[in-house]
Amino acid sequence: MSKTPAETGEERLIAKYFAPLAKYPGALGLLDDAATLTPPAGSDLVLTKDAIVGGVHFFPDDPADAVACKALRVNLSDLAAKGATAAGFLLALALPKSVTAGWLKAFARGLGEDAENYACPLLGGDTVRTPGPLTVSITALGFLPHGEMVQRHGGSPGDRIVVTGTIGDAALGLKLLSGAKAAQRWKLDKNMRAHLLGRYRLPQPRTAVAVMLRKHASAAMDVSDGLAGDLAKLCRVSGVGADIDVTRLPLSDAARRVLAVQPALIETILSGGDDYEIVCAVSDSDAFIADAAALGVKATEIGRMTAGEGAPRFIGADGKALSLRKTLFSHF
Amino acid sequence: MSKTPAETGEERLIAKYFAPLAKYPGALGLLDDAATLTPPAGSDLVLTKDAIVGGVHFFPDDPADAVACKALRVNLSDLAAKGATAAGFLLALALPKSVTAGWLKAFARGLGEDAENYACPLLGGDTVRTPGPLTVSITALGFLPHGEMVQRHGGSPGDRIVVTGTIGDAALGLKLLSGAKAAQRWKLDKNMRAHLLGRYRLPQPRTAVAVMLRKHASAAMDVSDGLAGDLAKLCRVSGVGADIDVTRLPLSDAARRVLAVQPALIETILSGGDDYEIVCAVSDSDAFIADAAALGVKATEIGRMTAGEGAPRFIGADGKALSLRKTLFSHF
Repeated sequence: MSKTPAETGEERLIAKYFAPLAKYPGALGLLDDAATLTPPAGSDLVLTKDAIVGGVHFFPDDPADAVACKALRVNLSDLAAKGATAAGFLLALALPKSVTAGWLKAFARGLGEDAENYACPLLGGDTVRTPGPLTVSITALGFLPHGEMVQRHGGSPGDRIVVTGTIGDAALGLKLLSGAKAAQRWKLDKNMRAHLLGRYRLPQPRTAVAVMLRKHASAAMDVSDGLAGDLAKLCRVSGVGADIDVTRLPLSDAARRVLAVQPALIETILSGGDDYEIVCAVSDSDAFIADAAALGVKATEIGRMTAGEGAPRFIGADGKALSLRKTLFSHF
Repeated sequence: MSKTPAETGEERLIAKYFAPLAKYPGALGLLDDAATLTPPAGSDLVLTKDAIVGGVHFFPDDPADAVACKALRVNLSDLAAKGATAAGFLLALALPKSVTAGWLKAFARGLGEDAENYACPLLGGDTVRTPGPLTVSITALGFLPHGEMVQRHGGSPGDRIVVTGTIGDAALGLKLLSGAKAAQRWKLDKNMRAHLLGRYRLPQPRTAVAVMLRKHASAAMDVSDGLAGDLAKLCRVSGVGADIDVTRLPLSDAARRVLAVQPALIETILSGGDDYEIVCAVSDSDAFIADAAALGVKATEIGRMTAGEGAPRFIGADGKALSLRKTLFSHF
């Protein structure tokens, strides 16, 4: 008689930490090779994939639940910016040997809470060993009515440019984490520090406005690599330019305080990453802003698209365009 | 005037190597945050995700095109085993700094050729830096008629167990790569060595039988972690046991030669990984085997499912069940 085969370590790990999250029937309890789901009739599928790497996109000692939430939310932010409603996600987790049961438990708890809150269930994935840093790769999928995905392409000269939330907080939060001296100069109170750090650690994807974007926006994307560079991408694909009024940029109280001490950090605010807001082109900004407000999301008109493809101009209080050294955050 | 923003290194990398592969219209030239595609009416979506890590799932000096093909094919193998027709894939690529332009070029060439050959276009993805080993995470998606996904669950006592192709070659190929002494003892000729190595390096997903599986199979999965362990998983989920006739196992000439020299390696053949064949439960094995042959795929009946959940028994020429020390390959 052969022995009863022991389940493998990977199977036990999946059963213990991740199967409880796989509540969607088509996830088949993570006991199959694949997941299945039935697209709503008349819908298009929207797919996005973002990976985050320890030591590159998050600090190795960041709380495990925050890492999980960030990995999922950066994908949810992409779906929202396209006008899609999230349907589920797949997770590839590359684990170094040093990862503890406590870490995995907290990671799964954070992931499970977000999956619930954003109605985006775990559908499947893969767990592998790595001799390198912990790496989380998520593919998220959503649905929307056929032909209605909001693309980067589609902005026209004259369209108003609107952005949700506030800009630059996460980049300032990263500066706080990276050097204690900066924080001392800024003289931030406890709440302001917490605000900037929270904005870096935990993106708030603007899922609330996804459906509404389809109604209003001719072009949209999420701001993940800095407003200046991301808007430049949107303009390139749409074949337009943009004039942005820097005095109208939506800034948090903390960011205003930082700017008052170090005005040069407008560059960090414009070109740092991790905002996870939505920037879009609309013909009627008042209607967009009112509809967003009704959904609990602040939106602000910051400028307009101009004829002729070109880099966006960021025009300051003196009427002159800022000269940005670096418009876009990039690890490459 | 602000400067024209330089495209980032990541954008240039994507534009140079991967955008040429993104021929599917919904990939939007990899210039958007997400891809979109329209599911065929009445279809279900099938999703799978497998990641491979340098130094764990492939050798760091494996040819770049072979790494790309392996990463895609292990996912295509999953789709095929579920009866799904591939529709496209998303790629997350974590690159160490040491990766050269030549490596990327070969990787993209291999990936592009497979995407063409398997009619599974690149839809989108993410490229990130890692201080660790090169890691490739692919999410593949396919479609099939609503409700027709072939699951692991569904096998019944009395069902015949059929496997495609040959078993154990890849595990023996890995042994060849790992220790030159083994190869000398086996006295393999050049073709046999090449066969085993090729089977390890380049999976041949059984996409040809995917549609036919839906007609015949009550349960199926791909054999990626060793026949013994994978069949045990299938039996557990189906709530059955299995009796396998080891003398009927489909073996290549090379594997037969190895077994003649080292009979104990039947354990490697049964429990090594990387076969990427399909094992399934069918009520009419003759019909399945004939249909598979018509599609150019050899299939072999190797046993039957039995009542009562339990580990599969592998019965040798002497009528006794083999005692396997380890039924399943696992990195955990």
